[in-house]
Amino acid sequence: MGARETIVRTLKLTLAYDGSRFVGWQRQADGESIQGVLERALDVLNGEPVTLHGAGRTDAGVHAFGQVASVAVSVPHDVETIVRALNAHLPRDIRVLAVDDVPVDFHARFSARGKMYRYLVRNAPLLSPFERGYVWHITERLHLDRMQRAAMLLCGTHDFAVFQSSGSRPGSTTRTITRSEVVVARAARSFDPPAPGVLLSYEVEGDGFLRHMVRAIVGTLVEIGQGRREPADMAELLAAGTRAQAGITAPAHGLYLVRVDYD
Amino acid sequence: MGARETIVRTLKLTLAYDGSRFVGWQRQADGESIQGVLERALDVLNGEPVTLHGAGRTDAGVHAFGQVASVAVSVPHDVETIVRALNAHLPRDIRVLAVDDVPVDFHARFSARGKMYRYLVRNAPLLSPFERGYVWHITERLHLDRMQRAAMLLCGTHDFAVFQSSGSRPGSTTRTITRSEVVVARAARSFDPPAPGVLLSYEVEGDGFLRHMVRAIVGTLVEIGQGRREPADMAELLAAGTRAQAGITAPAHGLYLVRVDYD
Repeated sequence: MGARETIVRTLKLTLAYDGSRFVGWQRQADGESIQGVLERALDVLNGEPVTLHGAGRTDAGVHAFGQVASVAVSVPHDVETIVRALNAHLPRDIRVLAVDDVPVDFHARFSARGKMYRYLVRNAPLLSPFERGYVWHITERLHLDRMQRAAMLLCGTHDFAVFQSSGSRPGSTTRTITRSEVVVARAARSFDPPAPGVLLSYEVEGDGFLRHMVRAIVGTLVEIGQGRREPADMAELLAAGTRAQAGITAPAHGLYLVRVDYD
Repeated sequence: MGARETIVRTLKLTLAYDGSRFVGWQRQADGESIQGVLERALDVLNGEPVTLHGAGRTDAGVHAFGQVASVAVSVPHDVETIVRALNAHLPRDIRVLAVDDVPVDFHARFSARGKMYRYLVRNAPLLSPFERGYVWHITERLHLDRMQRAAMLLCGTHDFAVFQSSGSRPGSTTRTITRSEVVVARAARSFDPPAPGVLLSYEVEGDGFLRHMVRAIVGTLVEIGQGRREPADMAELLAAGTRAQAGITAPAHGLYLVRVDYD
């Protein structure tokens, strides 16, 4: 054997994080990003700088139960050791749930087949101290059936430009949504006493999402639930609406990237 | 009608709070206390300073779902208005769940007939970012059945001096415990994906609790669950133990004051 060969591996990281104190997934000039914190922990392990690719570039305040990221490294350790070493270096609001060896051409974003997001709305007069920062609090009564009828109308392949934030990158705005429904979730924490009001969860799966798309959909759904719009407006917006005609962008802290799917 | 008479009422406040950033219930020279924050909000409403009495003087970091406090005020408003006004003034980690008019001699601490506390332990290799600060994380496998057998032994009227923190006030250390059990709780947040591991909840009700008593019991239960002590040790500790022989004091952030009972 001659000089030690450099091992090159691609790793798939499955991540959970509380987005509260971060500027979002992506590295930025100011403030702590989730990508930046993870790259620093990976750099230490790898001995030289790495670039981490996230499946979804979550905004400031958005949370994740199952974000996926990929990275090329020359670390010789087994995956369990890598999980332990990374978690030992990371702050407690970011956890590496799993590390898997994947083919070298695997890319967390480009290889993704689909994603699931969840958005939580607490509809109650008062918000529990334990839910603040983790749900959107709406005091005005929401009509669940209206929201459910409207949510259904988003399934299928549509041009979602109406729900894209202004100033988005150019490119196709057509996406296929395979699940779009509003369900009643259990208490936000199982250990909460029965809370007044209802916790609504908007669950959406698709092959991709435009910038702020889920939050703009939720803003529109809430206006429909309040009776300010009709459920059928959702189809009209999709067919011929402009961003200004759709609802407000719901706050980031109610949004969760739940899962990323690969073949 | 002559000069406007001063209305004197005693109010019972039911409170929920996230204890994370507070020095505890009681006013202290340094740092923000829950009592202090509430008194400031009540002072504004009342127009003159009030003194608030809490049923349980929770320590720094301890949370509450149903703390109770009493206060004498001369506010003329109805209770719904008082709830709204207080919550508008309070930080979002303290919420007034309810305000009730009670007899003027009602005192949140002295009138209390009993209390319920809960202590949460996450037994898993990894801790979810969303549970940090709200459960005690134990990675070593805990044997639930051992903990359950030990917890049962605490029911009844006993001298609990062995579970009292050193430097406590003098006075009777005999208390009656009517419920003491370890149960498996649901996922800490309903919206979490199925988390690895188990969430254990120690549920205890009694006519009163000594300083750090629940946390010292939980520290002992965990050592029993780990196999470092026998379940029967619990009875021996009660009968003839010293504080040094009991387990460690579990961290404050896993503890919740769930409920205070009155006749």
